Amino acid sequence: MKGMEKSYFWGMTLDGEHKEKKWEGTTTESTEDGTITTHSLCVRQVVLGADAKEGELNVIELECLGYEDKKQRVPVCVMKMGSTFVSNVEVVLEDCIGTFHLVRGSGPIHLSGTHQTETTILSEDVDDSMGEEEDDEEEDGVEEVPPKKKAKK
Amino acid sequence: MKGMEKSYFWGMTLDGEHKEKKWEGTTTESTEDGTITTHSLCVRQVVLGADAKEGELNVIELECLGYEDKKQRVPVCVMKMGSTFVSNVEVVLEDCIGTFHLVRGSGPIHLSGTHQTETTILSEDVDDSMGEEEDDEEEDGVEEVPPKKKAKK
Amino acid sequence: MKGMEKSYFWGMTLDGEHKEKKWEGTTTESTEDGTITTHSLCVRQVVLGADAKEGELNVIELECLGYEDKKQRVPVCVMKMGSTFVSNVEVVLEDCIGTFHLVRGSGPIHLSGTHQTETTILSEDVDDSMGEEEDDEEEDGVEEVPPKKKAKK
Amino acid sequence: MKGMEKSYFWGMTLDGEHKEKKWEGTTTESTEDGTITTHSLCVRQVVLGADAKEGELNVIELECLGYEDKKQRVPVCVMKMGSTFVSNVEVVLEDCIGTFHLVRGSGPIHLSGTHQTETTILSEDVDDSMGEEEDDEEEDGVEEVPPKKKAKK
Amino acid sequence: MKGMEKSYFWGMTLDGEHKEKKWEGTTTESTEDGTITTHSLCVRQVVLGADAKEGELNVIELECLGYEDKKQRVPVCVMKMGSTFVSNVEVVLEDCIGTFHLVRGSGPIHLSGTHQTETTILSEDVDDSMGEEEDDEEEDGVEEVPPKKKAKK
Repeated sequence: MKGMEKSYFWGMTLDGEHKEKKWEGTTTESTEDGTITTHSLCVRQVVLGADAKEGELNVIELECLGYEDKKQRVPVCVMKMGSTFVSNVEVVLEDCIGTFHLVRGSGPIHLSGTHQTETTILSEDVDDSMGEEEDDEEEDGVEEVPPKKKAKK
Repeated sequence: MKGMEKSYFWGMTLDGEHKEKKWEGTTTESTEDGTITTHSLCVRQVVLGADAKEGELNVIELECLGYEDKKQRVPVCVMKMGSTFVSNVEVVLEDCIGTFHLVRGSGPIHLSGTHQTETTILSEDVDDSMGEEEDDEEEDGVEEVPPKKKAKK
Repeated sequence: MKGMEKSYFWGMTLDGEHKEKKWEGTTTESTEDGTITTHSLCVRQVVLGADAKEGELNVIELECLGYEDKKQRVPVCVMKMGSTFVSNVEVVLEDCIGTFHLVRGSGPIHLSGTHQTETTILSEDVDDSMGEEEDDEEEDGVEEVPPKKKAKK
Repeated sequence: MKGMEKSYFWGMTLDGEHKEKKWEGTTTESTEDGTITTHSLCVRQVVLGADAKEGELNVIELECLGYEDKKQRVPVCVMKMGSTFVSNVEVVLEDCIGTFHLVRGSGPIHLSGTHQTETTILSEDVDDSMGEEEDDEEEDGVEEVPPKKKAKK
Repeated sequence: MKGMEKSYFWGMTLDGEHKEKKWEGTTTESTEDGTITTHSLCVRQVVLGADAKEGELNVIELECLGYEDKKQRVPVCVMKMGSTFVSNVEVVLEDCIGTFHLVRGSGPIHLSGTHQTETTILSEDVDDSMGEEEDDEEEDGVEEVPPKKKAKK
């Protein structure tokens, strides 16, 4: 079963005093509501602040775990005051923790994009209903595991 | 049930005399038609007007509520007369109010993109029909709550 | 029911002698085939012609009706000979008429993108079959109204 | 019925000696396998070769048939050595022949993107099975005509 | 049957000492879990390292097999220190091996994007169940062949 999807605008600022910020996007569970929520983030634009230092290079690195938990750490944006102010990226983080590092320069650099959630109700009566579901395309039992994840485009 | 989706071209201009404009995109209900409509906005291009002041920096900030109603306010575009005139962004606002602020410069700055709606008919006979719906993939009852929201890409 | 979708490459040129061109994209009906076709246009790139005048600013405005038939008119691209030749935009027009105006400069400016159609067969026996459709996910009757529209991304 | 979809990386180079190249993307039929395959191409990036002549303008025109077989011919990219080397485009060609012309300059210009195919098995027993299909959402008979086409985004 | 999809951030760096790197993205099989996994890669941004040599041209070529196993080799990005630092591309590799070559310049060049997987359970009882599946929309037997592949957008 596909859970309820919602999208939220998301923003983050890195500068000389906040050179490292985390996106904590692992699956959350609400025992109160009996739901689990998966999270994904898509960073779309990186904006150099109007007060960035002239000529200074700003480098943003993203650190996270990739396929088979292999550590990834690579610059996803380099910006220099005086030329362009907006860089377009498409950095997708799905069900994981990512750390954005301003490894060079003092910004400010403003990242923004979309935080998407998918919330699924944990069904409590799965075992009981198992025998009655012969005609269903997707079984209720699927609700107990995280929903199918789709790459957000 | 998935409602009827429609897309509309959307534009907004900010300048020295209109430095702040709102996108009022929360769910609307038509008691007349018995429908509810959810709204989303995707801002795609930011265009600096041909009459913008030479060398002036223009900064657009977006303010809205993000995940768990946490206030977001971050620059989504910075443009300077003399270099590029079109910046590509992908700013998605779903079922919420967003305020665009021209916090620096006097523009004019033209934002444009797509306003998407999804209209769902509120079913009136849900309670009566509940017992008869054993084979349906999606129950009519779902129609009484806002439809599943998908991140517009 | 979802109709048959097709995509076509689309191009349009504006210059000093053709400063205004229309996209006529409202729904068309073929009484011969018993079909209706909805149209959408996605303009993807705006290319400044190689023979554009050095230093001249070219401004393209799009005029159309938006949500609740509110008139929209806003620049979607500004280009200047001497810098970039290709601007990326994502201007979506769905089931409507749009007019592109070259309000400044003499071009030539070449717009291109995708014209998408969705053709649905008008069912003739809807009233007769109504009573027999209890198990269908989507009813034939839906075919008599324009198909669900999706924002082209 | 939706056929099996596959994607392939696609590249093409135009230069002074190869100023014109064709994309032959009409539907192909394999009588051996009893399948038909529809093709679509999405050109995503246009890269100016590192050895292009300084200051020379390069213009790429695309020629193909659009909606209602109306001939389209329009520049989709203009590049000049000395400024940017990568232009992003989104040129979609679906089930048709397109010709890319280097009408100005000597390149080299490298186009690349995705070639997508959708292969459908031609069912041989359609007429026989027709009477038994009352509950199917999509009839086998559909397999004899090209599958529904979707605009590749 | 559509398998479980997951997305991972992916990064790769090329420089003077590592001028060639492979993406090994052919289908993998886990006999332990009884699953097969198809892989696709979408490279989204190419970032020139802040320490790249001033004025040096960097050229990245991608080599892989395209449609009908025809070898493709074409530059997908050219970058020069001193101008832009981020190039946007959309290079999709599906179920294949691709080699990225830094054929000119010494970088460093940082590629990043999304590695997407789709994992399908190999059903063991397909032959037995074949006769019982008359009403299913999608047959279990399909599980024995790789799942339908979709172009990642």
